[in-house]
Amino acid sequence: MGTKYVYFYGDGKADGKADMKNLLGGKGANLAEMNLIGIPVPPGFTITTEVCTMFNLKGEREMLKLISKEVEEGVRQVEKIMGTKFGDKQNPCLFSVRSGSRVSMPGMMDTVLNLGLTEEVVEGLAKKTGNSAFAWDSYRRFIQMYGDVVLDMKPKTKEDIDPFEEILEEMKERKGVKNDNELSTEDLMELCGKFKSAVKEVTGKSFPTDPWEQLWGSIIAVFNSWKNERAIYYRKLNNIPEDWGTAVNVQAMVFGNMGKTSATGVAFTRDAATGENLFNGEYLINAQGEDVVAGTRTPQQITLEGSKRWAKLANVEEEDRKNNYPSLEEAMPDSYKELNEIQIKLETHYKDMQDLEFTIQDNKLWLLQTRGGKRTGAAMIKIAIDMMREGLLGEKESLMRVDPHKLDELLHPEFDKNALNKATSVAKGLPASPGAATGQICFFADEAEQWADDGKDVILVRIETSPEDLKGMNVAKGILTAKGGMTSHAAVVARGMGKCCVSGAGSISINYKGRTVKMDGKMFKEGDWISLNGSTGQVYDGRIETTEVELSSNFSELMKICDKHTRLKVRTNADTPNDSKKAISFGAQGIGLCRTEHMFFEGERIIAVREMILADDEAGRRVALEKLLPMQRSDFEGIFEAMNGFPVTVRLLDPPLHEFVPHDQKGQEEMARTMKISVEEVKSKVENLHEFNPMLGHRGCRLGNTYPEITEMQSRAIIEAAINCKKKGINAVPEIMIPLIGTDKEFIMQEKIVREVAEKVFEEKGEKIDYLVGTMIEIPRAALTADKIAEHAEFFSFGTNDLTQMTFGYSRDDAGKFLPIYMEKDLLPCDPFQELDQVGVGQLVEMGTQRGRKTRSNLKVGICGEHGGEPNSIDFCHRVGMNYVSCSPYRVPIARLAAAQASIRNDLE
Amino acid sequence: MGTKYVYFYGDGKADGKADMKNLLGGKGANLAEMNLIGIPVPPGFTITTEVCTMFNLKGEREMLKLISKEVEEGVRQVEKIMGTKFGDKQNPCLFSVRSGSRVSMPGMMDTVLNLGLTEEVVEGLAKKTGNSAFAWDSYRRFIQMYGDVVLDMKPKTKEDIDPFEEILEEMKERKGVKNDNELSTEDLMELCGKFKSAVKEVTGKSFPTDPWEQLWGSIIAVFNSWKNERAIYYRKLNNIPEDWGTAVNVQAMVFGNMGKTSATGVAFTRDAATGENLFNGEYLINAQGEDVVAGTRTPQQITLEGSKRWAKLANVEEEDRKNNYPSLEEAMPDSYKELNEIQIKLETHYKDMQDLEFTIQDNKLWLLQTRGGKRTGAAMIKIAIDMMREGLLGEKESLMRVDPHKLDELLHPEFDKNALNKATSVAKGLPASPGAATGQICFFADEAEQWADDGKDVILVRIETSPEDLKGMNVAKGILTAKGGMTSHAAVVARGMGKCCVSGAGSISINYKGRTVKMDGKMFKEGDWISLNGSTGQVYDGRIETTEVELSSNFSELMKICDKHTRLKVRTNADTPNDSKKAISFGAQGIGLCRTEHMFFEGERIIAVREMILADDEAGRRVALEKLLPMQRSDFEGIFEAMNGFPVTVRLLDPPLHEFVPHDQKGQEEMARTMKISVEEVKSKVENLHEFNPMLGHRGCRLGNTYPEITEMQSRAIIEAAINCKKKGINAVPEIMIPLIGTDKEFIMQEKIVREVAEKVFEEKGEKIDYLVGTMIEIPRAALTADKIAEHAEFFSFGTNDLTQMTFGYSRDDAGKFLPIYMEKDLLPCDPFQELDQVGVGQLVEMGTQRGRKTRSNLKVGICGEHGGEPNSIDFCHRVGMNYVSCSPYRVPIARLAAAQASIRNDLE
Repeated sequence: MGTKYVYFYGDGKADGKADMKNLLGGKGANLAEMNLIGIPVPPGFTITTEVCTMFNLKGEREMLKLISKEVEEGVRQVEKIMGTKFGDKQNPCLFSVRSGSRVSMPGMMDTVLNLGLTEEVVEGLAKKTGNSAFAWDSYRRFIQMYGDVVLDMKPKTKEDIDPFEEILEEMKERKGVKNDNELSTEDLMELCGKFKSAVKEVTGKSFPTDPWEQLWGSIIAVFNSWKNERAIYYRKLNNIPEDWGTAVNVQAMVFGNMGKTSATGVAFTRDAATGENLFNGEYLINAQGEDVVAGTRTPQQITLEGSKRWAKLANVEEEDRKNNYPSLEEAMPDSYKELNEIQIKLETHYKDMQDLEFTIQDNKLWLLQTRGGKRTGAAMIKIAIDMMREGLLGEKESLMRVDPHKLDELLHPEFDKNALNKATSVAKGLPASPGAATGQICFFADEAEQWADDGKDVILVRIETSPEDLKGMNVAKGILTAKGGMTSHAAVVARGMGKCCVSGAGSISINYKGRTVKMDGKMFKEGDWISLNGSTGQVYDGRIETTEVELSSNFSELMKICDKHTRLKVRTNADTPNDSKKAISFGAQGIGLCRTEHMFFEGERIIAVREMILADDEAGRRVALEKLLPMQRSDFEGIFEAMNGFPVTVRLLDPPLHEFVPHDQKGQEEMARTMKISVEEVKSKVENLHEFNPMLGHRGCRLGNTYPEITEMQSRAIIEAAINCKKKGINAVPEIMIPLIGTDKEFIMQEKIVREVAEKVFEEKGEKIDYLVGTMIEIPRAALTADKIAEHAEFFSFGTNDLTQMTFGYSRDDAGKFLPIYMEKDLLPCDPFQELDQVGVGQLVEMGTQRGRKTRSNLKVGICGEHGGEPNSIDFCHRVGMNYVSCSPYRVPIARLAAAQASIRNDLE
Repeated sequence: MGTKYVYFYGDGKADGKADMKNLLGGKGANLAEMNLIGIPVPPGFTITTEVCTMFNLKGEREMLKLISKEVEEGVRQVEKIMGTKFGDKQNPCLFSVRSGSRVSMPGMMDTVLNLGLTEEVVEGLAKKTGNSAFAWDSYRRFIQMYGDVVLDMKPKTKEDIDPFEEILEEMKERKGVKNDNELSTEDLMELCGKFKSAVKEVTGKSFPTDPWEQLWGSIIAVFNSWKNERAIYYRKLNNIPEDWGTAVNVQAMVFGNMGKTSATGVAFTRDAATGENLFNGEYLINAQGEDVVAGTRTPQQITLEGSKRWAKLANVEEEDRKNNYPSLEEAMPDSYKELNEIQIKLETHYKDMQDLEFTIQDNKLWLLQTRGGKRTGAAMIKIAIDMMREGLLGEKESLMRVDPHKLDELLHPEFDKNALNKATSVAKGLPASPGAATGQICFFADEAEQWADDGKDVILVRIETSPEDLKGMNVAKGILTAKGGMTSHAAVVARGMGKCCVSGAGSISINYKGRTVKMDGKMFKEGDWISLNGSTGQVYDGRIETTEVELSSNFSELMKICDKHTRLKVRTNADTPNDSKKAISFGAQGIGLCRTEHMFFEGERIIAVREMILADDEAGRRVALEKLLPMQRSDFEGIFEAMNGFPVTVRLLDPPLHEFVPHDQKGQEEMARTMKISVEEVKSKVENLHEFNPMLGHRGCRLGNTYPEITEMQSRAIIEAAINCKKKGINAVPEIMIPLIGTDKEFIMQEKIVREVAEKVFEEKGEKIDYLVGTMIEIPRAALTADKIAEHAEFFSFGTNDLTQMTFGYSRDDAGKFLPIYMEKDLLPCDPFQELDQVGVGQLVEMGTQRGRKTRSNLKVGICGEHGGEPNSIDFCHRVGMNYVSCSPYRVPIARLAAAQASIRNDLE
């Protein structure tokens, strides 16, 4: 027996079941499952997703060869159950043909209903049902849908005219009716004639009269719709792989438009917005499914309670409501009762909030679809916790029902929905750091500080940001940059601050000199109001109100459950006591990355840093470093205090020195004044420090190896701070991290300096503390030679930002020029700076971990790149066997959930 | 039995032999071997290199504990053979203590002679030999040497006074003599007294009178000298690992200073400069070895023929020569005869030209050392070929005797040696491209072209070069840059052109505006003469004559033999028909890398290229590309013609587009004029193209994937050119190479474009050709996913320049700031851009090759990075199983030899 391509279901039997979503798509698998649990579902069959893949590879002819027999057999089985016959003029069987992929892609692909109708069959249908209006309405719907979907007559742009709509509008106007269902049978017959003429006119061919031709045309059209533009776009947006393909569901038609005893509707087992355990939904009498969503008629509520709530909001009097918009509970109490029982049965069976589609044909209820319902972040959490309390879900199941990506919306302010609807988008960049922000355009970081002092809300707008801009970024409400990707300086820093940021908005044009920015053709001046959505990358003209979100008690409970099921610890990337405290409040269990260079910019420090850079020799550098020592020490004391008892991984100086000198005329003049040297000297030093590829330049441990005195000062500051804390009764656990190691010898040299300094300080202070010395694995060569490095390093922290840059050869600051195109053309499944590339970069992470542990079995391994807060990457880190992940404070809850899910998903009990 | 640390030899017996160099050092192994083949060698013993390593790790005490018994036993054995006794006052045994590492490090480490003499022993020696002058001369030499070496009294700088030399000079002046050997016994006795007082004065301790104390002090001093500054420097220069260590040779003294019947000398079995089969060397009567090299007395020739040649050159009359400078052949005919027999025996035994040291003590000849003699590149080849012809060596042995690194000096002009001696070095950079060049300083490439047209010799002096400078570089005699490493643009291009280049001379300071360059404090103006040595990195003030080297027939024969024993093919990196022809003349068997972008700069092309860059859309780009098509096609035709029948790997456009636009005001103004747009537009476009890390930016196949029309044009040019060639009867074999592939999908997309274009051209032309589509593996991720990529790619070419950059995270243009320091501090064994890092980058090369072949067993694999011309890297490529290496034309012969040696070294017969 060869592969099975067509799965039948009907009459309480089914070839498939719910867990065959990959093969049958979500819709097909659930239709089968509903059959199996005794829910009334019109019979039908599902053509598998494998056929879609094959169709895309080998084309129509091959596909037909393979499946036609099975499809014919499927049709015969449906006929048998329904007691009707496909194409029969007296007793016709009609079909719907629908798409259905693994995950729901609502409205993205095509559907054909009422298939099997012809000029002759329609007459038979009218006779059989005694309802010609219904029969002709079904026929005109079929012609229109088939024309749109199979014959490609759908308008391509908004300006194009839809021939069917045009004819329909003309008819309604002529007849003086408002709604389609007010047309008479004769009107509908006329409409069908005109529709068919339109088909002939546009396509040059007559509308097909062979039901089998109709069926195959529809199946192929649905397969083709997998590749339509909006479906491709949707998949990009939702990270759905191209090669999954869609299944095709061919199902016996039932009719909600057979008169007053028929209806159709959609329902949710709980409230999708709030999560409240409240059955709700909408329906229409004498309608087909498309009418409910089309918005031409006002849909009615399913429950009486829902109906009353609706009436209140819509200002509808109770009398009017009862007469004109009764609930299903009132209008068809028996069907309602059955539907309510079914919804409970389905939710209990699937253990998840369900989104249902149903049709009532002549008082007989049919379920057409069930699937997990889309919901808001808040609803998602409430439902999961409620279902756990209700005993429907266990703790682990409950956790698995929460999508970590969606937690983000609970952790950041959002725009007021109504205000947002009226706003005009003027640009789109990358969603670099989530949240919403509104404020006045300011182009310069130092001025932003001044403005903020004056009480203004500032949006900092820059071509790109640099560490010089830190303070300005910190006071801004949001940051917008024209260049740079998801891990550009602006993006990384903003996420760390939990601040809204849109980066790499390539279409905007900034003129610093003129203090203007051109967006979507409009010139914005300094001081003009704009608003940013860091979760979508949209930039809006003007001010939009934002709403703060408060964390619910459900949220806290969820987090607590997470920690019970987690193997991976979650740390945070934090450089200040404030960030540290924030992260602790989100549940961080230590700092995985404390970037010391961010401390170099505050206040007077930058002067000492620049003194060091300007020094001609070691002695000169030591004088400047001596000034930095007490400041760094007190920084570390503050952080150790905030993290009381939790480990703090401190990375020694990493960025190239040119990041600490000003690159603009004004800044250079100021520096010359402060340092009491000529502007030429400043310029010459800056030029001397210039690098062609700073990412691959004189930075990281290369600084410490060429200027060991920097490492000495920083080690001293860390160890002294830890001892000072110990004396105050605070337990400081420093883990000193050497950045950018590429060879074991580099590590040995740096480690030696650190340990010598530590011993010296221990002796001076008469006190010891425990500390570790380890390294970041961020250079491919470090991963390749991790066995050697682990002979000396006590921990590894994967710096997957840089590791991704070097493994792909992508500069995160420049990749904005091609990454979007790469994702659009499917050359990359996703932005590798957002989600760890497990296929390539992941090999190095796994290799580094395994080789490191081979030499040092108890090697502590973590990740401190941006990926440490991304759920799929966290799952990978878990599987690789890391000890912890580290991410920006605002992503800590997401990471905790993702870590728990990784444990549940991957670990055997 | 534990490890043996001391190896005895003497009286025709030896514990060691010649192939134990790693353990005994070269000197010790050969002393043992000479004993075994019956050559008179004073008895002694060798303390192994392992002891040196242990000494460095564990210190003196541990070392003594381990070896003192064996050393004492060694001394006793020597006493037995010599019939003397160490420290005995009547019949003393004296020792020399010398270093001896695996490979010769001439003069780098320390030696102590005449060890065992004390105030009392010297009297006994005088009595026993009846030669007090000799005895006291030996004693004063010993005190001086011991003081210098063991007691650390050697002057540290040139300015310091050597106390011994001062005393000696004072004495000679007082006595009115010119040479040491004119001093009387009394003088020497006085000298010894004063020497010892000096020791007491400087060190605060009396000169040791215990021979054992002297012996241990000397052994330790020799071990310590492994780590002296000049030894470390020498090892860096010659890539000798630090951990090899030196052996110590303790050997019974024989005396060349025992009067007129004694002598000492050095000899070569063949001429080290020309390779001529002519025994030659120098000696002195009544002297110790150090006198021959010290230059205080004029050494005499060993053979009569040599003596006569010398006299002619030195303008010495035959009478004078015979009386005052007789050859050893004349002065001591018996000893000469024996020596001549020994030299023949040694050369035949070792099958290599030998460098001998001998001493004649009272008419008895002793050999003190034999080793492979250093020689010039020309001599090296002549000797290898001659020995093969003489039947001394087989073909393979003969090849293995040639050092591929030394071939370089035969392929490039050199400075006249005499002129060079008088020249002043003003700067030192990296030896980026070998050869010598002299010319006038010019700072701008376009002006260099003008100057060259005017017949001037130009040295192009730049901070760094860019592709814009290509033509100027091509006409220059040499190139000097202030920034950039061994694989910077300047270096790579210069090597390709076979043009002398010194890069990264960090100490020079260029002022473009003032048209000056400051070197070693001196200000040079435009037009001033300087000279470059691209083989050493030296920059000289003024004009130095250069000499062209002609390739000998021996060279051609060597190359022919190479090809008989080689598995790896050697291709070349060439971008023009001229380079291609040059490479063919050097024996290249194809082009491994033809960089199409270099073609974009010539003449009118750059205008079309810029048109393409300025275009707003695809249509605009296509118009510009249409203009480039015929030019590219004719380039390829020329190259295919030059390479008739050999494969040509053409790399599609690789560099970021900003390399094609001018970055200076002048250039931008010119571009604006040519393109008929405003300077602002030019500036804005240039700014728009700017990248923070261009190395990791929008380049390689990322261009072809975002602008597929570029790939289309280039593919068309290649395929059309190949078909045009075919029609002319020329067999063109294009291998189209997609650069910078990181994912298989990138390759698939580019390959599709190439193949579609090819099919189209085949149809248009009614003619087909064979071609391959493959890729460069230069991104770590490509190596990691090579199995996937090889599903589609027909060949791999490892671009190890970029692969090294990304695997190490080193920008080749910026690494100059830390790489020299890294090598100095032993953080790196060598420049990874010069010699492939087999430990790290090599893993990716091996992985890429193996994984690629796993999917496609017949995958053609080569290397086209700079490492393709470096012998150790070539050996690695051979072992990894590559099909070919590719290098710049001037390195082709080196690669052919290295490839042959790799086959001989690694392949089983």
